Amino acid sequence: MTVFYPNGQPYQGGDRSFDEKTDSEVAYGHRGMTLEEDLNVTNRYYIETDQAVIYKKPTPIQIVHVDYPKRSAAKITEAYFRRASTTDYNGIYKGKYIDFEAKETTHAHYIPLKNFHAHQVEHMKRIKRHGGIGFIIVKFTQSSETFLLDADFLAVYWDASLTGGRKSIPKQLFQEHGHLIPQNYLPRIDYLRVVKEVYF
Amino acid sequence: MTVFYPNGQPYQGGDRSFDEKTDSEVAYGHRGMTLEEDLNVTNRYYIETDQAVIYKKPTPIQIVHVDYPKRSAAKITEAYFRRASTTDYNGIYKGKYIDFEAKETTHAHYIPLKNFHAHQVEHMKRIKRHGGIGFIIVKFTQSSETFLLDADFLAVYWDASLTGGRKSIPKQLFQEHGHLIPQNYLPRIDYLRVVKEVYF
Repeated sequence: MTVFYPNGQPYQGGDRSFDEKTDSEVAYGHRGMTLEEDLNVTNRYYIETDQAVIYKKPTPIQIVHVDYPKRSAAKITEAYFRRASTTDYNGIYKGKYIDFEAKETTHAHYIPLKNFHAHQVEHMKRIKRHGGIGFIIVKFTQSSETFLLDADFLAVYWDASLTGGRKSIPKQLFQEHGHLIPQNYLPRIDYLRVVKEVYF
Repeated sequence: MTVFYPNGQPYQGGDRSFDEKTDSEVAYGHRGMTLEEDLNVTNRYYIETDQAVIYKKPTPIQIVHVDYPKRSAAKITEAYFRRASTTDYNGIYKGKYIDFEAKETTHAHYIPLKNFHAHQVEHMKRIKRHGGIGFIIVKFTQSSETFLLDADFLAVYWDASLTGGRKSIPKQLFQEHGHLIPQNYLPRIDYLRVVKEVYF
Protein backbone atom coordinates (compact mmCIF):
# COMPACT_ATOMS: atom_id res chain seq x y z
CA MET A 1 0.00 0.00 0.00
CA THR A 2 1.30 3.40 -0.94
CA VAL A 3 0.48 6.03 1.63
CA PHE A 4 0.73 9.77 1.24
CA TYR A 5 1.80 12.86 3.10
CA PRO A 6 -0.70 15.71 3.33
CA ASN A 7 1.16 17.37 0.44
CA GLY A 8 0.50 14.40 -1.82
CA GLN A 9 4.02 12.98 -1.73
CA PRO A 10 4.18 9.24 -1.18
CA TYR A 11 5.30 8.17 2.26
CA GLN A 12 8.43 6.11 1.80
CA GLY A 13 8.71 4.88 5.31
CA GLY A 14 10.22 7.06 8.00
CA ASP A 15 10.62 3.84 9.90
CA ARG A 16 12.82 2.38 7.18
CA SER A 17 15.51 4.99 6.86
CA PHE A 18 19.06 3.79 7.20
CA ASP A 19 19.75 6.04 10.12
CA GLU A 20 17.20 4.19 12.15
CA LYS A 21 18.35 0.70 11.35
CA THR A 22 20.86 -1.36 13.22
CA ASP A 23 23.70 -2.86 11.25
CA SER A 24 22.20 -6.30 11.21
CA GLU A 25 18.93 -5.00 9.78
CA VAL A 26 20.59 -3.61 6.69
CA ALA A 27 20.89 -6.28 4.05
CA TYR A 28 22.34 -5.97 0.59
CA GLY A 29 19.59 -7.87 -1.17
CA HIS A 30 17.64 -6.28 -4.02
CA ARG A 31 13.90 -6.80 -4.11
CA GLY A 32 12.17 -3.91 -5.85
CA MET A 33 13.83 -1.19 -3.89
CA THR A 34 13.00 2.47 -3.92
CA LEU A 35 15.63 5.09 -4.62
CA GLU A 36 15.71 5.80 -0.88
CA GLU A 37 16.40 2.18 -0.06
CA ASP A 38 19.06 1.96 -2.76
CA LEU A 39 20.74 5.08 -1.40
CA ASN A 40 20.65 3.75 2.14
CA VAL A 41 22.36 0.55 1.06
CA THR A 42 24.84 2.59 -0.97
CA ASN A 43 25.63 4.89 1.95
CA ARG A 44 26.07 1.89 4.21
CA TYR A 45 28.54 0.49 1.71
CA TYR A 46 30.45 3.77 1.57
CA ILE A 47 30.73 3.78 5.36
CA GLU A 48 31.78 0.14 5.60
CA THR A 49 34.44 0.62 2.93
CA ASP A 50 35.46 3.88 4.64
CA GLN A 51 34.97 6.01 1.51
CA ALA A 52 32.59 8.57 2.98
CA VAL A 53 30.29 9.24 5.92
CA ILE A 54 26.89 10.20 4.52
CA TYR A 55 23.52 9.55 6.15
CA LYS A 56 19.89 10.17 5.51
CA LYS A 57 18.41 12.34 8.22
CA PRO A 58 15.48 10.93 10.17
CA THR A 59 12.02 12.02 9.04
CA PRO A 60 10.97 15.03 11.12
CA ILE A 61 8.01 14.21 13.31
CA GLN A 62 5.99 16.52 15.52
CA ILE A 63 5.21 14.67 18.70
CA VAL A 64 1.95 15.58 20.39
CA HIS A 65 1.44 12.84 22.94
CA VAL A 66 3.63 10.18 24.55
CA ASP A 67 2.60 7.45 26.95
CA TYR A 68 5.11 6.26 29.56
CA PRO A 69 4.03 2.81 30.61
CA LYS A 70 5.85 1.32 33.57
CA ARG A 71 8.66 -1.07 32.70
CA SER A 72 8.33 -0.65 28.95
CA ALA A 73 9.38 1.77 26.25
CA ALA A 74 7.86 5.21 25.91
CA LYS A 75 5.12 5.01 23.28
CA ILE A 76 4.26 7.90 21.00
CA THR A 77 0.49 7.83 20.53
CA GLU A 78 -0.06 11.02 18.57
CA ALA A 79 2.38 12.56 16.12
CA TYR A 80 2.43 14.08 12.66
CA PHE A 81 4.83 14.28 9.76
CA ARG A 82 6.57 17.62 9.39
CA ARG A 83 8.23 19.16 6.42
CA ALA A 84 12.00 19.25 6.77
CA SER A 85 13.88 22.55 6.64
CA THR A 86 16.83 20.96 4.92
CA THR A 87 17.66 18.22 2.46
CA ASP A 88 17.46 14.57 3.41
CA TYR A 89 21.11 13.59 3.02
CA ASN A 90 24.37 15.06 4.20
CA GLY A 91 27.82 14.07 5.27
CA ILE A 92 31.49 14.21 4.40
CA TYR A 93 33.52 12.90 1.45
CA LYS A 94 37.24 13.50 0.98
CA GLY A 95 37.11 16.32 3.51
CA LYS A 96 34.24 18.08 1.74
CA TYR A 97 30.75 18.71 3.04
CA ILE A 98 28.17 16.91 0.86
CA ASP A 99 24.46 17.74 0.80
CA PHE A 100 21.71 16.41 -1.44
CA GLU A 101 18.08 15.63 -1.94
CA ALA A 102 16.89 12.51 -3.76
CA LYS A 103 13.60 12.09 -5.63
CA GLU A 104 11.93 9.63 -7.92
CA THR A 105 9.56 10.63 -10.68
CA THR A 106 7.19 8.52 -12.72
CA HIS A 107 7.08 11.15 -15.47
CA ALA A 108 9.12 10.08 -18.48
CA HIS A 109 10.34 13.50 -19.60
CA TYR A 110 10.44 15.78 -16.58
CA ILE A 111 10.28 16.05 -12.79
CA PRO A 112 7.78 18.49 -11.31
CA LEU A 113 9.33 21.16 -9.09
CA LYS A 114 6.71 20.39 -6.44
CA ASN A 115 8.95 17.46 -5.48
CA PHE A 116 11.11 20.07 -3.79
CA HIS A 117 10.21 22.95 -1.55
CA ALA A 118 11.43 26.46 -0.95
CA HIS A 119 13.35 25.72 2.27
CA GLN A 120 15.33 23.00 0.54
CA VAL A 121 16.27 25.23 -2.38
CA GLU A 122 17.37 27.99 0.01
CA HIS A 123 19.29 25.46 2.07
CA MET A 124 21.21 24.23 -0.97
CA LYS A 125 22.03 27.79 -2.03
CA ARG A 126 23.48 28.38 1.45
CA ILE A 127 25.48 25.18 1.35
CA LYS A 128 27.10 26.13 -1.93
CA ARG A 129 27.80 29.65 -0.71
CA HIS A 130 29.65 28.18 2.28
CA GLY A 131 31.82 25.95 0.14
CA GLY A 132 29.87 22.70 0.27
CA ILE A 133 28.88 20.38 -2.56
CA GLY A 134 25.14 20.39 -3.21
CA PHE A 135 23.14 18.45 -5.76
CA ILE A 136 19.97 16.51 -6.42
CA ILE A 137 19.69 12.85 -7.36
CA VAL A 138 16.67 12.12 -9.52
CA LYS A 139 15.50 8.72 -10.67
CA PHE A 140 13.28 8.49 -13.71
CA THR A 141 11.50 5.28 -12.82
CA GLN A 142 10.17 4.58 -16.33
CA SER A 143 13.66 4.29 -17.77
CA SER A 144 15.33 3.36 -14.48
CA GLU A 145 17.91 6.08 -15.09
CA THR A 146 19.27 8.00 -12.13
CA PHE A 147 20.99 11.36 -12.57
CA LEU A 148 23.02 13.69 -10.43
CA LEU A 149 22.42 17.39 -11.14
CA ASP A 150 24.17 20.29 -9.43
CA ALA A 151 21.92 22.28 -7.10
CA ASP A 152 22.56 25.44 -9.11
CA PHE A 153 20.30 24.10 -11.85
CA LEU A 154 17.52 23.40 -9.41
CA ALA A 155 17.88 26.95 -8.08
CA VAL A 156 17.67 28.46 -11.57
CA TYR A 157 14.52 26.48 -12.46
CA TRP A 158 13.01 27.13 -9.05
CA ASP A 159 13.53 30.87 -9.23
CA ALA A 160 12.26 31.02 -12.82
CA SER A 161 9.09 29.16 -11.84
CA LEU A 162 8.32 31.87 -9.28
CA THR A 163 8.06 34.43 -12.09
CA GLY A 164 6.00 32.42 -14.53
CA GLY A 165 8.57 29.88 -15.77
CA ARG A 166 7.84 26.17 -16.17
CA LYS A 167 6.98 24.17 -13.08
CA SER A 168 9.23 21.23 -13.85
CA ILE A 169 12.79 20.34 -14.83
CA PRO A 170 13.00 18.56 -18.19
CA LYS A 171 14.86 15.26 -18.39
CA GLN A 172 16.83 16.78 -21.23
CA LEU A 173 18.51 19.12 -18.75
CA PHE A 174 19.67 16.13 -16.73
CA GLN A 175 21.01 14.55 -19.90
CA GLU A 176 22.85 17.68 -21.00
CA HIS A 177 24.05 19.16 -17.71
CA GLY A 178 23.64 16.32 -15.23
CA HIS A 179 25.46 13.03 -14.91
CA LEU A 180 24.05 9.54 -15.28
CA ILE A 181 24.93 7.59 -12.14
CA PRO A 182 26.30 4.12 -12.76
CA GLN A 183 24.15 1.40 -11.19
CA ASN A 184 25.78 -1.79 -10.04
CA TYR A 185 25.18 -4.56 -7.62
CA LEU A 186 27.28 -2.80 -5.01
CA PRO A 187 27.45 0.09 -4.57
CA ARG A 188 23.94 0.24 -5.92
CA ILE A 189 23.80 3.92 -6.89
CA ASP A 190 27.44 4.88 -7.13
CA TYR A 191 26.94 8.64 -6.93
CA LEU A 192 30.33 9.26 -5.33
CA ARG A 193 32.01 8.14 -8.53
CA VAL A 194 30.21 11.03 -10.23
CA VAL A 195 30.93 13.43 -7.37
CA LYS A 196 34.60 12.60 -7.60
CA GLU A 197 34.68 13.35 -11.32
CA VAL A 198 32.58 16.48 -11.21
CA TYR A 199 33.68 18.24 -8.01
CA PHE A 200 37.26 17.13 -7.40
CA MET B 1 7.50 17.06 33.93
CA THR B 2 10.72 15.41 32.88
CA VAL B 3 10.18 12.34 30.77
CA PHE B 4 12.69 9.67 29.91
CA TYR B 5 13.82 7.49 27.08
CA PRO B 6 14.03 3.76 27.72
CA ASN B 7 17.77 4.19 28.27
CA GLY B 8 17.13 6.59 31.12
CA GLN B 9 18.10 9.76 29.26
CA PRO B 10 15.70 12.63 29.71
CA TYR B 11 13.50 13.35 26.74
CA GLN B 12 14.23 16.90 25.65
CA GLY B 13 11.41 17.23 23.20
CA GLY B 14 11.76 15.81 19.71
CA ASP B 15 8.84 18.02 18.86
CA ARG B 16 10.76 21.12 19.83
CA SER B 17 13.89 20.79 17.76
CA PHE B 18 14.81 23.68 15.54
CA ASP B 19 14.67 21.60 12.42
CA GLU B 20 11.01 21.06 12.94
CA LYS B 21 10.10 24.65 13.66
CA THR B 22 9.05 27.28 11.20
CA ASP B 23 10.91 30.57 11.32
CA SER B 24 8.13 32.36 13.10
CA GLU B 25 8.10 29.80 15.88
CA VAL B 26 11.71 30.42 16.80
CA ALA B 27 11.99 33.27 19.24
CA TYR B 28 15.09 34.69 20.80
CA GLY B 29 13.70 34.99 24.30
CA HIS B 30 15.42 33.30 27.23
CA ARG B 31 13.22 31.54 29.73
CA GLY B 32 15.05 28.69 31.42
CA MET B 33 16.26 27.07 28.25
CA THR B 34 17.99 23.75 27.91
CA LEU B 35 21.32 23.41 26.15
CA GLU B 36 19.43 22.01 23.16
CA GLU B 37 17.17 25.03 22.98
CA ASP B 38 20.11 27.39 23.37
CA LEU B 39 21.94 25.63 20.55
CA ASN B 40 18.91 25.76 18.31
CA VAL B 41 18.62 29.50 18.82
CA THR B 42 22.36 29.84 18.27
CA ASN B 43 22.27 27.81 15.05
CA ARG B 44 19.32 29.85 13.83
CA TYR B 45 21.36 32.98 14.47
CA TYR B 46 24.35 31.57 12.58
CA ILE B 47 22.14 30.82 9.59
CA GLU B 48 20.41 34.19 9.64
CA THR B 49 23.74 36.01 9.83
CA ASP B 50 25.08 33.66 7.14
CA GLN B 51 28.03 32.48 9.25
CA ALA B 52 27.37 28.75 9.03
CA VAL B 53 24.71 26.19 8.13
CA ILE B 54 24.38 23.82 11.07
CA TYR B 55 21.24 21.96 12.14
CA LYS B 56 20.12 19.51 14.74
CA LYS B 57 18.91 16.32 13.13
CA PRO B 58 15.35 15.26 13.88
CA THR B 59 14.91 12.68 16.62
CA PRO B 60 14.79 9.23 15.02
CA ILE B 61 11.40 7.65 15.45
CA GLN B 62 10.28 4.16 14.54
CA ILE B 63 6.81 4.41 13.11
CA VAL B 64 4.58 1.42 13.70
CA HIS B 65 1.12 2.63 12.78
CA VAL B 66 -0.29 5.59 10.85
CA ASP B 67 -3.91 6.56 10.37
CA TYR B 68 -4.93 8.30 7.14
CA PRO B 69 -8.15 10.11 7.87
CA LYS B 70 -9.91 11.63 4.87
CA ARG B 71 -9.27 15.33 4.36
CA SER B 72 -6.84 15.69 7.22
CA ALA B 73 -3.21 15.06 7.97
CA ALA B 74 -1.81 11.57 8.36
CA LYS B 75 -1.70 10.78 12.07
CA ILE B 76 0.95 8.57 13.61
CA THR B 77 -0.75 6.57 16.35
CA GLU B 78 2.04 4.24 17.38
CA ALA B 79 5.74 5.01 17.29
CA TYR B 80 8.83 4.68 19.46
CA PHE B 81 12.02 6.59 20.05
CA ARG B 82 15.08 5.09 18.42
CA ARG B 83 18.70 5.54 19.20
CA ALA B 84 20.51 7.60 16.57
CA SER B 85 23.49 6.14 14.70
CA THR B 86 25.17 9.50 14.51
CA THR B 87 25.57 12.70 16.47
CA ASP B 88 22.74 15.20 16.77
CA TYR B 89 24.31 18.16 15.00
CA ASN B 90 26.11 18.63 11.73
CA GLY B 91 26.65 21.15 8.99
CA ILE B 92 29.18 23.39 7.32
CA TYR B 93 31.32 26.28 8.55
CA LYS B 94 33.89 28.09 6.40
CA GLY B 95 33.88 25.23 3.93
CA LYS B 96 34.52 22.61 6.63
CA TYR B 97 32.27 19.77 7.71
CA ILE B 98 31.25 20.20 11.36
CA ASP B 99 29.86 17.41 13.55
CA PHE B 100 29.08 17.39 17.24
CA GLU B 101 27.05 16.00 20.08
CA ALA B 102 25.76 18.18 22.93
CA LYS B 103 24.98 17.03 26.45
CA GLU B 104 24.11 18.51 29.80
CA THR B 105 25.19 17.03 33.09
CA THR B 106 24.03 17.77 36.59
CA HIS B 107 27.22 16.32 38.08
CA ALA B 108 29.55 19.04 39.28
CA HIS B 109 32.86 17.38 38.51
CA TYR B 110 32.34 14.93 35.66
CA ILE B 111 30.04 13.75 32.90
CA PRO B 112 29.22 10.03 32.78
CA LEU B 113 30.19 8.32 29.51
CA LYS B 114 26.73 6.77 29.38
CA ASN B 115 25.57 10.12 28.00
CA PHE B 116 27.15 8.95 24.74
CA HIS B 117 26.97 5.64 22.96
CA ALA B 118 29.25 3.47 20.90
CA HIS B 119 27.79 4.40 17.50
CA GLN B 120 28.33 8.07 18.19
CA VAL B 121 31.94 7.59 19.21
CA GLU B 122 32.62 5.51 16.10
CA HIS B 123 30.85 8.10 13.98
CA MET B 124 33.04 10.90 15.32
CA LYS B 125 36.20 8.87 14.73
CA ARG B 126 35.12 8.41 11.10
CA ILE B 127 34.35 12.10 10.69
CA LYS B 128 37.80 13.08 11.89
CA ARG B 129 39.45 10.46 9.70
CA HIS B 130 37.68 11.96 6.68
CA GLY B 131 38.85 15.47 7.43
CA GLY B 132 35.87 16.83 9.34
CA ILE B 133 35.78 18.74 12.62
CA GLY B 134 34.27 16.71 15.45
CA PHE B 135 33.70 17.67 19.06
CA ILE B 136 31.34 17.50 21.99
CA ILE B 137 29.66 20.40 23.75
CA VAL B 138 29.02 19.73 27.42
CA LYS B 139 27.15 21.96 29.82
CA PHE B 140 27.79 21.57 33.54
CA THR B 141 24.46 22.83 34.75
CA GLN B 142 25.56 23.43 38.36
CA SER B 143 28.11 26.02 37.31
CA SER B 144 26.37 26.93 34.05
CA GLU B 145 29.66 26.45 32.23
CA THR B 146 29.62 25.06 28.73
CA PHE B 147 32.74 23.55 27.16
CA LEU B 148 33.81 22.42 23.73
CA LEU B 149 36.08 19.37 23.74
CA ASP B 150 37.61 17.72 20.68
CA ALA B 151 36.13 14.32 19.88
CA ASP B 152 39.56 12.70 20.21
CA PHE B 153 39.34 13.08 23.99
CA LEU B 154 35.94 11.42 24.08
CA ALA B 155 37.36 8.56 22.01
CA VAL B 156 40.32 8.10 24.37
CA TYR B 157 38.10 8.03 27.47
CA TRP B 158 35.55 5.82 25.75
CA ASP B 159 38.11 3.26 24.65
CA ALA B 160 39.78 3.26 28.06
CA SER B 161 36.43 2.64 29.76
CA LEU B 162 36.00 -0.53 27.71
CA THR B 163 39.11 -1.99 29.32
CA GLY B 164 38.41 -1.04 32.90
CA GLY B 165 39.04 2.71 32.82
CA ARG B 166 36.80 5.27 34.47
CA LYS B 167 33.23 5.59 33.20
CA SER B 168 33.18 9.36 33.08
CA ILE B 169 35.12 12.35 31.81
CA PRO B 170 36.30 14.66 34.58
CA LYS B 171 35.47 18.34 34.36
CA GLN B 172 39.15 18.98 34.86
CA LEU B 173 39.83 17.54 31.40
CA PHE B 174 37.43 20.08 29.92
CA GLN B 175 39.20 22.84 31.81
CA GLU B 176 42.65 21.73 30.72
CA HIS B 177 42.07 20.50 27.16
CA GLY B 178 38.66 21.89 26.27
CA HIS B 179 37.49 25.41 25.69
CA LEU B 180 34.96 27.40 27.68
CA ILE B 181 32.31 28.67 25.27
CA PRO B 182 31.40 32.32 25.71
CA GLN B 183 27.73 32.82 26.55
CA ASN B 184 26.01 35.97 25.45
CA TYR B 185 22.57 37.20 24.72
CA LEU B 186 23.05 36.41 21.02
CA PRO B 187 24.52 34.14 19.88
CA ARG B 188 23.61 32.32 23.07
CA ILE B 189 26.29 29.61 22.98
CA ASP B 190 28.91 31.04 20.64
CA TYR B 191 30.70 27.78 19.90
CA LEU B 192 31.81 28.89 16.44
CA ARG B 193 34.04 31.50 18.03
CA VAL B 194 35.86 28.61 19.73
CA VAL B 195 35.83 26.47 16.56
CA LYS B 196 37.40 29.33 14.64
CA GLU B 197 40.21 29.68 17.17
CA VAL B 198 40.86 26.00 17.65
CA TYR B 199 40.45 24.51 14.17
CA PHE B 200 41.26 27.30 11.72
